[in-house]
Amino acid sequence: MFLVIKLINYPNGKKCNQNHVLSSASNRGMQLEDDINQTNNYYLACDIANIHKKPTPIQIVKVDYPARDKAKIIEAYFKVPSTTDYNGVYRGRAIDFEAKECASKTSFPLASIHPHQITHLASVLKHGAIAFVIFRLTYIDKTYFVSADKVINFYENSKRKSIPYAWFEENGIIIEYNLLKPVDYLQIVDKLYF
Amino acid sequence: MFLVIKLINYPNGKKCNQNHVLSSASNRGMQLEDDINQTNNYYLACDIANIHKKPTPIQIVKVDYPARDKAKIIEAYFKVPSTTDYNGVYRGRAIDFEAKECASKTSFPLASIHPHQITHLASVLKHGAIAFVIFRLTYIDKTYFVSADKVINFYENSKRKSIPYAWFEENGIIIEYNLLKPVDYLQIVDKLYF
Repeated sequence: MFLVIKLINYPNGKKCNQNHVLSSASNRGMQLEDDINQTNNYYLACDIANIHKKPTPIQIVKVDYPARDKAKIIEAYFKVPSTTDYNGVYRGRAIDFEAKECASKTSFPLASIHPHQITHLASVLKHGAIAFVIFRLTYIDKTYFVSADKVINFYENSKRKSIPYAWFEENGIIIEYNLLKPVDYLQIVDKLYF
Repeated sequence: MFLVIKLINYPNGKKCNQNHVLSSASNRGMQLEDDINQTNNYYLACDIANIHKKPTPIQIVKVDYPARDKAKIIEAYFKVPSTTDYNGVYRGRAIDFEAKECASKTSFPLASIHPHQITHLASVLKHGAIAFVIFRLTYIDKTYFVSADKVINFYENSKRKSIPYAWFEENGIIIEYNLLKPVDYLQIVDKLYF
């Protein structure tokens, strides 16, 4: 059903706010993740790159065995991630990035990025990875590619608790919507790093 | 307690079979993982590389909210991994590897490696990653580094259902035990790839 709505709204390759209205609040948070997963699946299937979302880190407390060889987790908790969500390899280079979706009207709250993730981005940059953050600002319906050094710099040096949307205009690069590759970030990686 | 046993048994930098006897069967399977995690922590802390184990992939079915902002997973299942367990970045290159521990006396059963993981290793190799498998053969108390192309070749071309230990002697490189870096695989990566 959701796919149908998507196809109807996206024939001209542009995103439509209506889509966000149609999806529930909990789905909305997953929309960017779904789009990136679809893009990564395309990259993998077409042998362009091998980039995956890491599984959500979970602390398993109790496991039940209702049958032999069948384990059922009956108590577990979400853990704070110590790295970014996505990484892999493209044209011989390590790729590492985080994705953040935000519904606010004017600015992106910095609290949405864990300090661990900033430390991680700085570390992978130092070791030679291509590192960045993909921001989707749903209210203005734009998806930005921002290189990690710019995000780290804002995080460490600004006194603000949120990133105003104007900052993304200056420091980010818009990722245009594409039906097959909804978040075609490698097109930007090609321009910036190769 | 386990750490104490380890320190007593490992003063000369060599592994000791007694240690495997002391640990239970379920712990034994985790020993290599623990050793690699400790090694990766060392690499990270000393700013040598940024390599992590991916979280175990889990299918979450039911989540309970006993309190606001507190989510408790009450039904979930382990998923078959579609990639290898470890990846990251070292000296500008993408690193990708799997780790396997085996208690058999004579050979490593190929069924322990998922077909998905072989496909994944072939894919990351193609895109330019440094890819390999670390095998720990607990019965003969040796840990081997084997480059991914050799493992893929055996997997695809041999009619055997297991890898005889003699094969590791010919195709693998022994990773010597080190107290701070129990599985210092980057020492071998340095020799082979840089």
